[in-house]
Amino acid sequence: MEFNLSAGLFSAEHHFEPLEEARTYDVLILGGGPAGMTAAVYCMRKGLSTGLITGNVGVQMADTAGIENYLGYRYIQGNELIDKFREQVTQFGISFETDAQIVRMEPGRIHRIHLADGRTFTGRTIIIATGKQSKKLQVPGEREFTGHGVAYCAICDAPFYAGRSVVVVGGGNSGVAAGIDLAKIAEHVTLIQRRDRLTADQILIDKLAEFKNVNYLLEHEIKTILGEKQVKRVELVSRKNGRKSMIDTDGVFVEIGLVPNSAFARDVVAMNEYAEIIVDCHCRTSVDGLFAAGDVTSVPYKQIIIACGEGAKAALSAADYIMNQTSQD
Amino acid sequence: MEFNLSAGLFSAEHHFEPLEEARTYDVLILGGGPAGMTAAVYCMRKGLSTGLITGNVGVQMADTAGIENYLGYRYIQGNELIDKFREQVTQFGISFETDAQIVRMEPGRIHRIHLADGRTFTGRTIIIATGKQSKKLQVPGEREFTGHGVAYCAICDAPFYAGRSVVVVGGGNSGVAAGIDLAKIAEHVTLIQRRDRLTADQILIDKLAEFKNVNYLLEHEIKTILGEKQVKRVELVSRKNGRKSMIDTDGVFVEIGLVPNSAFARDVVAMNEYAEIIVDCHCRTSVDGLFAAGDVTSVPYKQIIIACGEGAKAALSAADYIMNQTSQD
Repeated sequence: MEFNLSAGLFSAEHHFEPLEEARTYDVLILGGGPAGMTAAVYCMRKGLSTGLITGNVGVQMADTAGIENYLGYRYIQGNELIDKFREQVTQFGISFETDAQIVRMEPGRIHRIHLADGRTFTGRTIIIATGKQSKKLQVPGEREFTGHGVAYCAICDAPFYAGRSVVVVGGGNSGVAAGIDLAKIAEHVTLIQRRDRLTADQILIDKLAEFKNVNYLLEHEIKTILGEKQVKRVELVSRKNGRKSMIDTDGVFVEIGLVPNSAFARDVVAMNEYAEIIVDCHCRTSVDGLFAAGDVTSVPYKQIIIACGEGAKAALSAADYIMNQTSQD
Repeated sequence: MEFNLSAGLFSAEHHFEPLEEARTYDVLILGGGPAGMTAAVYCMRKGLSTGLITGNVGVQMADTAGIENYLGYRYIQGNELIDKFREQVTQFGISFETDAQIVRMEPGRIHRIHLADGRTFTGRTIIIATGKQSKKLQVPGEREFTGHGVAYCAICDAPFYAGRSVVVVGGGNSGVAAGIDLAKIAEHVTLIQRRDRLTADQILIDKLAEFKNVNYLLEHEIKTILGEKQVKRVELVSRKNGRKSMIDTDGVFVEIGLVPNSAFARDVVAMNEYAEIIVDCHCRTSVDGLFAAGDVTSVPYKQIIIACGEGAKAALSAADYIMNQTSQD
């Protein structure tokens, strides 16, 4: 059940107050992505004692090339937007713990978070904002060639494929956006999609269609990734007629979606069939005092601006909860 | 039932395509605040034909001095953030209608919006994002002295009160923020609150407490606003003991909350006791094809970043609705 939280936002060069084991925080926020950071700003502004626990996996946002649908920025790089969020959070001198591996959480009147290193932290409320991570293909060769031709982040790894041939798996927004990024620099891009059509925004589909070096294989999936030290080819199968085929490629970009970072909370809060934490419109979970926000939850549509809005809601709900609890004491 | 939509964002100097009466849009968005503008960006990116109908009341956001809790900007003026939103929306060449007075809406397979000037526009879906407007005190003298000492927007009118005495009514975030703005330039500020404590964020309360020229009257309310051409004094009553008192003042800033701009939809979609349009977590209203987002809805907490998130959800829900409808045709 050991688990790396998403979002290693606070690097060693940032010197904040570390979390104290002896102290019970008003709010412990798990995760430093858009939802967690917005929650932090709102909690600090409410005057709540706030701890932020982030992991070392790195935020999805950092994996996104250009962002054009975050209101306020017509175009901004993922990393740039993270920097701006971070600057806004750290102005308050928030307590934080980075590179944290949460193994489990223990609900109660005071909720307790257990880290892999044995330390525990407590909060009167907890906001789970641990996000999602890339889904794997789970085919032979995928694990073996990860970092040697198999990649999950086009923006990070695309530059290595200048003038080479790549396949992109996935026809949603991430897949098509990765296709566009790669089409600009690779010699050739093959986009492989299980469904019979692309599901990305039309604007992205249109943009990808402008490139002459892209072809599409709909209703296909990868069976095996082959190579020696590096990826050399992939074996495909048609979902329509079961026919197998082989294509040579230098790289495989997997962009088939995300899984919630919710395992550590599995026995604690109610989840849906996708392992997303079920929240109501106030970001409340099934357990009193436990809130959740952003991509790790059942909220529809996984978007930065939506995650931010949910983070604000969760923080304000937690603040209300604490105020009501205090007035009952 | 005549009604001014909030948000007159698109001034005469912007030359966009006007809405066409003969055309049925995929999405008609009502309102040009944070929710409406985010919805517009998402709809246009989805390749949907989109019309935006805005009014002439002016957006709440423009009434906000400095914004410090919109993620991505540690500090930004309301007007500046609006400009950025507008720039992002208008890059797509959206169809729009400004200064629109919507008198009613007529739901159906195609939904129809009736303007006061007799024109009608139709959409396969509608996103209602008309926001809220300032609540009135509803005491004698309020209407008479509006613009002559009675104000609803501290950021707009504060400069007129340099070196003078003002009262601010309301102890929530808007009231306390107005108090801070006014304390900087007025000679004296009296903050009047009906409840027995201020309900604003602690950070704001602390900031206001730093000013020596502010006093607080808790559990008081204004009974009458008096003056000649301009406000001269207000009559107060204590909610604790009914005792009346009079204080001299040059201005009354009313910051007691907001009412939803939902009257035109009253007989169409389900609303709660506050006249907010009830939405589910997908921003769906009680009527198929009608969506709503932001401050006009039952969503908890009225914040720019939350309204933006809801606008994105409403747009993506509308896009899904249209796609499902199309695949059934």
